[in-house]
Amino acid sequence: MPHLPDWLARRALLHPDRPALIGSFATWSFAELDARASALAMGLRALGLLPGQRLAILARNSPYYAAALHAAPRCGLLLVPLNTRLTPNELAWQLADCGATLLLYDEAHAAVAAILDGVERVALEPLTELVTGEVAAAPPIDLDAPHTIIYTSGTTGHPKGAMLSAGNHWWSATASLLNLGLHETDRWLAVLPLFHVGGLSILLRGVIYGIPVVLHERFDPAAALAAIDDEAVTIASLVAVMLARMLEIRGQRPFPPHFRCALLGGGPAPQQLLESCASRGVPVVQTYGMTETASQAVTLAPADALRKLGSAGQPLLPMELRIVAAGRVAAPGEVGEICVRGPMVTKGYYGRPEATAAALHDGWLHTGDLGYLDPEGFLYVVDRRSDLIISGGENIYPAEVEAILLEHPAVAEAGVIGAPDPLWGQVPVAFLVIRDAAHADSNQLIEHCRARLATYKAPRQIHVVAELPRTAAGKLRRNLLRELLERM
Amino acid sequence: MPHLPDWLARRALLHPDRPALIGSFATWSFAELDARASALAMGLRALGLLPGQRLAILARNSPYYAAALHAAPRCGLLLVPLNTRLTPNELAWQLADCGATLLLYDEAHAAVAAILDGVERVALEPLTELVTGEVAAAPPIDLDAPHTIIYTSGTTGHPKGAMLSAGNHWWSATASLLNLGLHETDRWLAVLPLFHVGGLSILLRGVIYGIPVVLHERFDPAAALAAIDDEAVTIASLVAVMLARMLEIRGQRPFPPHFRCALLGGGPAPQQLLESCASRGVPVVQTYGMTETASQAVTLAPADALRKLGSAGQPLLPMELRIVAAGRVAAPGEVGEICVRGPMVTKGYYGRPEATAAALHDGWLHTGDLGYLDPEGFLYVVDRRSDLIISGGENIYPAEVEAILLEHPAVAEAGVIGAPDPLWGQVPVAFLVIRDAAHADSNQLIEHCRARLATYKAPRQIHVVAELPRTAAGKLRRNLLRELLERM
Repeated sequence: MPHLPDWLARRALLHPDRPALIGSFATWSFAELDARASALAMGLRALGLLPGQRLAILARNSPYYAAALHAAPRCGLLLVPLNTRLTPNELAWQLADCGATLLLYDEAHAAVAAILDGVERVALEPLTELVTGEVAAAPPIDLDAPHTIIYTSGTTGHPKGAMLSAGNHWWSATASLLNLGLHETDRWLAVLPLFHVGGLSILLRGVIYGIPVVLHERFDPAAALAAIDDEAVTIASLVAVMLARMLEIRGQRPFPPHFRCALLGGGPAPQQLLESCASRGVPVVQTYGMTETASQAVTLAPADALRKLGSAGQPLLPMELRIVAAGRVAAPGEVGEICVRGPMVTKGYYGRPEATAAALHDGWLHTGDLGYLDPEGFLYVVDRRSDLIISGGENIYPAEVEAILLEHPAVAEAGVIGAPDPLWGQVPVAFLVIRDAAHADSNQLIEHCRARLATYKAPRQIHVVAELPRTAAGKLRRNLLRELLERM
Repeated sequence: MPHLPDWLARRALLHPDRPALIGSFATWSFAELDARASALAMGLRALGLLPGQRLAILARNSPYYAAALHAAPRCGLLLVPLNTRLTPNELAWQLADCGATLLLYDEAHAAVAAILDGVERVALEPLTELVTGEVAAAPPIDLDAPHTIIYTSGTTGHPKGAMLSAGNHWWSATASLLNLGLHETDRWLAVLPLFHVGGLSILLRGVIYGIPVVLHERFDPAAALAAIDDEAVTIASLVAVMLARMLEIRGQRPFPPHFRCALLGGGPAPQQLLESCASRGVPVVQTYGMTETASQAVTLAPADALRKLGSAGQPLLPMELRIVAAGRVAAPGEVGEICVRGPMVTKGYYGRPEATAAALHDGWLHTGDLGYLDPEGFLYVVDRRSDLIISGGENIYPAEVEAILLEHPAVAEAGVIGAPDPLWGQVPVAFLVIRDAAHADSNQLIEHCRARLATYKAPRQIHVVAELPRTAAGKLRRNLLRELLERM
């Protein structure tokens, strides 16, 4: 694959004064973002960091985060964005797993960083202070070079670091472009956390397309609506729970005509929400993607949005899609495992050759998700990986929660599933076989989880049962737990 | 580089019924274009053609031409579009040079094809008749595979076949996209001949972007305006003489607001034309490119069109640009040779390792054209290769015309330069040292050229001189001929 000029440096040359990041406290032009990234790259080199090392970052959404995203590849470093909702234990595990050399943190995470003593830690913002004097030119971008490691939960109980190359991000950005188009007036709203691929990829599209990103520190429905109304946002990446809250506040007041796309990802969207948007003229474009595909893999084209309500759409131009059932390519309408292949797909998981070999066959990523294609080739996602719980756009793997529950002395067996929730889509619920009923207080067990897991992963309810339904081979039958829950 | 799904097959899957080609006699949907290309690919295989062979085409602009463009890579064939204005001798030379296995021709060129007896010849249109029954799936596109050979005149008197890979075309299409954007309503007007890269690349953008191409058999200013007014054309690729004729017909009547870009290439644009367009609100975007860069290399962004009138703009995102003077990178404002590097640049000339080595150094294409960058990095093309004549968008190399003149027994020495022409930009003019004045009739010498060269290459005037200005080393000093012409 070819080397490309550094995207941000080129944009800074092409239109230095155009806003690159519009934040709540500052607007940075492409020239300023480029200068900040250069300063940070110099700072990182001065700290002795070497190409190939991993640079972790624990920070809220901010322009400084964007500077780190562009500075890291200039030093040949792999950026590892960390989920700020994780507990110190979970963070320490990921830092150790990727062998991070340095952790960048912002003020809001200084206290957490202080106890992560297995790694060198440096405050992010001071390193981005503009420097005077000669600045090294940004080297070309090798599309084959690893660029980012993003942790994604796995079925095995521990998250895995999906490696994304510069080329994965580039192809993802151009693939999205070929589907959604690009207007001179485009501005993309980023309210998703930058530690997820859905948020991070917006920053990359911003510099590849040369358009401003309106960056919010966190999602606030009123602020998101204000950005659309007053800051001329044309595209927003959202998950269903965000869009639902925005509609709730909005009432019947229409969205401005310049707002051309609510790109809706991060899990299934309730049909009712889609219909409500359709009836109000909110331009929703559903998408199906994941960390391993550098964000969107399959997206509904705007022209098909109403005709194919509920479909995730068709594969983006350079992506191939097929459904595999019983070891062969499924017929239209037949449900099977969703598999994708293309230049946006990860080369694998950091330091996990077995997990990589299990997920990737001849370039095809086996997503574990179930779906079917209609006769026109539109994808309908039937179910995420049978065990995956999606709560407000966050993925929760039951195995990870179960492992924590089993650490508690009172718990003999644990089964975790997602229960429907009107606000979050799903919330985790645990079924437990108890060793010692005297020490099995529900609140205390939930507390046990909260102390060890991000809050959103802790079960909302605990149900004590005599035994868990299992297959003859002893494998947990979560579908029977779901049936049990429905009958409760 | 990765393999991509066949672009056309994917577009036919994504939106089969959307118009792909809107011609004067037929409109083909993406599904029909795909079916025609499949039929033609089957026909070519049935004729025994093998991957790697060269498939020449001599035809007017038509949907069938587009079918051939997409069918050839499906068989692993390299398409060689031939300039329909060339003489049979010139055509025979190019067919032999590329070792074409087969020549496809349309009805209008059946007579010429009949005398090109060094190659197997087949009529194009019957081969694209739709077939019934199972059609082989289009194989993936290898971006590294050679795709097209396009002849471009050279300084040595004979044209050279620039090889363009599938990746060159893909990167060119996405590069243009990142500059011009992409609207759902876009329709691109193709009035340039498809045997030039400027025309051919429109067909490739059409399938890569999934937008309709309005395809005219030839340029007619009234028809081009009608397509803009009545067929909702939003972008048109034009050369200066075409745009000037359109403005002449148009008078003061404004262009419709949906027409967002007159992409103006193929040589320098008169300042007066640019100013006239600016004053009338015609959205002109100047571009500088060549066969070797798969079309645009440097383009003025729409936002800068007025502020930088006369500039060719800035390099498209994945392209690098520098000016080389006296063996080093020139300072801003300093004139030197324009050099470009990037994934759109040809890997070289077919069967010409020396010419390739002369033009390409470490990936940098030395264009031979002169220009400078302003302090903001905008390119101003000062002069095409000092000897190049551009007449109505067609390149004429004086060495080629001089070689033909020297074949005439009366001619001892020949020097050809471009004379300014209000309509064509330039026309060729010859200065001759005559051996035998009795046989040196101007009309007869021009006839001699017309019999051997495309009409546009034949000199419009012949001036007989006692001697030609030369350097001490005997090299022709064409700049002195231009001064001489000015004084005439």
